[in-house]
Amino acid sequence: MLNPAVSTYLNSHWDDLFASFADLLRFESLADVKDPDGCSPCAQWLVDRLTALGMQAEAVASAGPPVVLGELHVDDSLPTLLIYAHYDVQPVDPIEEWVSPPFEATLRDGFIYARGATDDKGQLFCHLAAIEAWVRAAGKPPVNLKVCFEGEEEVGSPHMEAFLREHRDRLAADALLVMDSSFHDLQTPAITYALRGLCFFEVVFTGPSADLHSGIAGGAVRNPLNALAAMVGRLHDEDGRVQIPGFYDDVLALTDAERSEWEQLGDDEAELCQRFGVDVLAGGESGYSARERRWARPTCDCNGLWGGFTGAGSKTVLPALAQAKISMRLVSAQDPTKVAEAFRAFVAANTPAGITSEVKVNAMAAPVLFDREQPAVAAAKRAFADVFGREAVLVRHGASIPITEVFQRVCGLDGLVSGIAQPDSQMHSPNERIRVEQLRKGMVFAALFYQELAADAT
Amino acid sequence: MLNPAVSTYLNSHWDDLFASFADLLRFESLADVKDPDGCSPCAQWLVDRLTALGMQAEAVASAGPPVVLGELHVDDSLPTLLIYAHYDVQPVDPIEEWVSPPFEATLRDGFIYARGATDDKGQLFCHLAAIEAWVRAAGKPPVNLKVCFEGEEEVGSPHMEAFLREHRDRLAADALLVMDSSFHDLQTPAITYALRGLCFFEVVFTGPSADLHSGIAGGAVRNPLNALAAMVGRLHDEDGRVQIPGFYDDVLALTDAERSEWEQLGDDEAELCQRFGVDVLAGGESGYSARERRWARPTCDCNGLWGGFTGAGSKTVLPALAQAKISMRLVSAQDPTKVAEAFRAFVAANTPAGITSEVKVNAMAAPVLFDREQPAVAAAKRAFADVFGREAVLVRHGASIPITEVFQRVCGLDGLVSGIAQPDSQMHSPNERIRVEQLRKGMVFAALFYQELAADAT
Repeated sequence: MLNPAVSTYLNSHWDDLFASFADLLRFESLADVKDPDGCSPCAQWLVDRLTALGMQAEAVASAGPPVVLGELHVDDSLPTLLIYAHYDVQPVDPIEEWVSPPFEATLRDGFIYARGATDDKGQLFCHLAAIEAWVRAAGKPPVNLKVCFEGEEEVGSPHMEAFLREHRDRLAADALLVMDSSFHDLQTPAITYALRGLCFFEVVFTGPSADLHSGIAGGAVRNPLNALAAMVGRLHDEDGRVQIPGFYDDVLALTDAERSEWEQLGDDEAELCQRFGVDVLAGGESGYSARERRWARPTCDCNGLWGGFTGAGSKTVLPALAQAKISMRLVSAQDPTKVAEAFRAFVAANTPAGITSEVKVNAMAAPVLFDREQPAVAAAKRAFADVFGREAVLVRHGASIPITEVFQRVCGLDGLVSGIAQPDSQMHSPNERIRVEQLRKGMVFAALFYQELAADAT
Repeated sequence: MLNPAVSTYLNSHWDDLFASFADLLRFESLADVKDPDGCSPCAQWLVDRLTALGMQAEAVASAGPPVVLGELHVDDSLPTLLIYAHYDVQPVDPIEEWVSPPFEATLRDGFIYARGATDDKGQLFCHLAAIEAWVRAAGKPPVNLKVCFEGEEEVGSPHMEAFLREHRDRLAADALLVMDSSFHDLQTPAITYALRGLCFFEVVFTGPSADLHSGIAGGAVRNPLNALAAMVGRLHDEDGRVQIPGFYDDVLALTDAERSEWEQLGDDEAELCQRFGVDVLAGGESGYSARERRWARPTCDCNGLWGGFTGAGSKTVLPALAQAKISMRLVSAQDPTKVAEAFRAFVAANTPAGITSEVKVNAMAAPVLFDREQPAVAAAKRAFADVFGREAVLVRHGASIPITEVFQRVCGLDGLVSGIAQPDSQMHSPNERIRVEQLRKGMVFAALFYQELAADAT
């Protein structure tokens, strides 16, 4: 049970806390690598807030957007928790589908709507509120705290590895909480011990030097759009198996323990169909449940493809070039560098005469697999059970949080990935939102997690 | 040899004829289906000129721009020639690349520059001048003449089939000249006896009801972009053969005569590579020369494809839908309706579980194959040889002139497609032009063609 003064503080200051949250959501902190300064005002706002709470805080320059680092040292005998979250957000397109402006926190039907309401400003704000409550109501938090709020998570954290390498000593901690994931379902908290990795590529197929008339050139000139589509089509066989040679070489098989735990979570296929707006879960490899395919199997998806005439009506053009964005979700122990090489070779082998192909790597992240037996996992389980009245489940997750892998590899930090996002938060989509109730409980959870971590250590 | 009085007339009246041509070029007769009345002043000018020459002429209303019909009946014993040309022109964008204003005939380096100088006002004007010369210098033309000048060719003649159906009787003729094509090279006249047809489709593959996060849904939800690419990829085999079942069923094989005539035209592959901006002519089916593939083999090209995230950077989206524009160039005796059905069946068979597909037909035109032995072809050959000092070559063409197919199918007219356009006329591009010398010879050719047609009939 959370320290009553802290609990009371969070309850009685909700209006002020909401106003602050609305301020945070107002920043258009789009993770645009071309304009790293676009995130600076948001970073500075965070620094100001942390400083006001007595933390040593700073917007530290990186080769990308600034990284907000903060520290509140209470006592050498207490464990140190490093909290990670990100303050950058996804683009808002298609903007016309938003019911209310994406950068204006709007209350509707018990939700707060805004880009970042959940991912990840909502999750980040749970900790701002929790730290504030401990400092204001109890004088200090029950553990030593460090925070690391990044500004380029949504573009794959291209500069964070270098940053963490440089500031490794400053980030030393006993436990790491990556606050950027979701509940298992609307009611059940989840602690994630494995994440998929990512390779994100851009592929350009170039044919003739300019668009041609398909009546005049058609049948003579190789069409780069046809060729690119054919290459993408060959990425999978009929059973959904990725056909890049060597792609599955390093994939660790699921353990029997995991398969049986996941079966006990119940069949989620009907719920997933509804959530994803499909009639059937027809993606991925045959021979695995949808959960296994999402959590523990690698995938390959075309995220964007374009070329030729895309306006209204007909234009019989034979296009000069065709482009695609293609990404793979990786699982332990696939190596993104090795996968990227295999993909390059696959593209080269599927580039026909008359076409020049180019592959650019936009982002890479290794998959993560954390120790399920560490004390921070137990502390989070107790805090979740107390606040939400449900046992947290131990899960993997299909998405990538590249920074997690870097924390593990570069900083030697073991930890957990968790959060209070809910499956219907519409992250990355128009009308992203968070339930007011969930946000408020999230603040209590954060505050209680610090307390449980301290209890564990004593 | 052309009637000397007619020949003299054309020579001695050049200044007046050029002034008239400049008047014709001044009309901004853009084929804009949104404003069919925009073409009316040009149509009326044509009617006035034809009437002044003693023709029964009229700007006949259609569901699109007016169609100029004219008739000059000389004698029942003479054959009747129907001359088709179009008075509408392509848009002028990019306007900044024009050296002189596009609607002002400008003499420069032996060329007349203006939009429509060649396509198709220049070609049309050859006949205005020829008719004038026959009427003024000889009292009457040597054949019965009909003209049909359309105003929406550049937008695919959407209303002309209905128009020709309605006015079929008025257009009855012994021969048809579609005056809208080019010389084989700068010096060599060409008579086109076959054109490819067209089917133009739009295909939509729909997956989830909204864009999804590829980390969360990837491996569970079928990706419509992957699926559409795979379908497009399966349209061809490794040898460039279209894989739609039944696609080649009605394709007439090239005759030995055609293959050998075309070989004598010489190898054009180096010139085509340069013109198309490619290193190798790698499109189409193996086993055929590039000329054969362009003129006499059907093709299937993806003209546009789009879906997912196409902006700068990375967005790991699993898109809700994917769209493509796909068209086929058809050759005799393929039936566009049958091909469209086969394509629909192919798309359905290549729509995997989890995807809904939709096929929309944007345009259809049958291929055309005229009789190479008809008297009008022989008459045109004699006239070309006399005026240009070169034997005309008999060719096919890879593009479609939809009206030609309608004349054949709806009006039962056999004929030929020809003209005096040259490969460097810059049709459809900025700085469209015609050589003064070529225009003047074109007038003589038109006048002589009537005479040769009459000679044939006696």
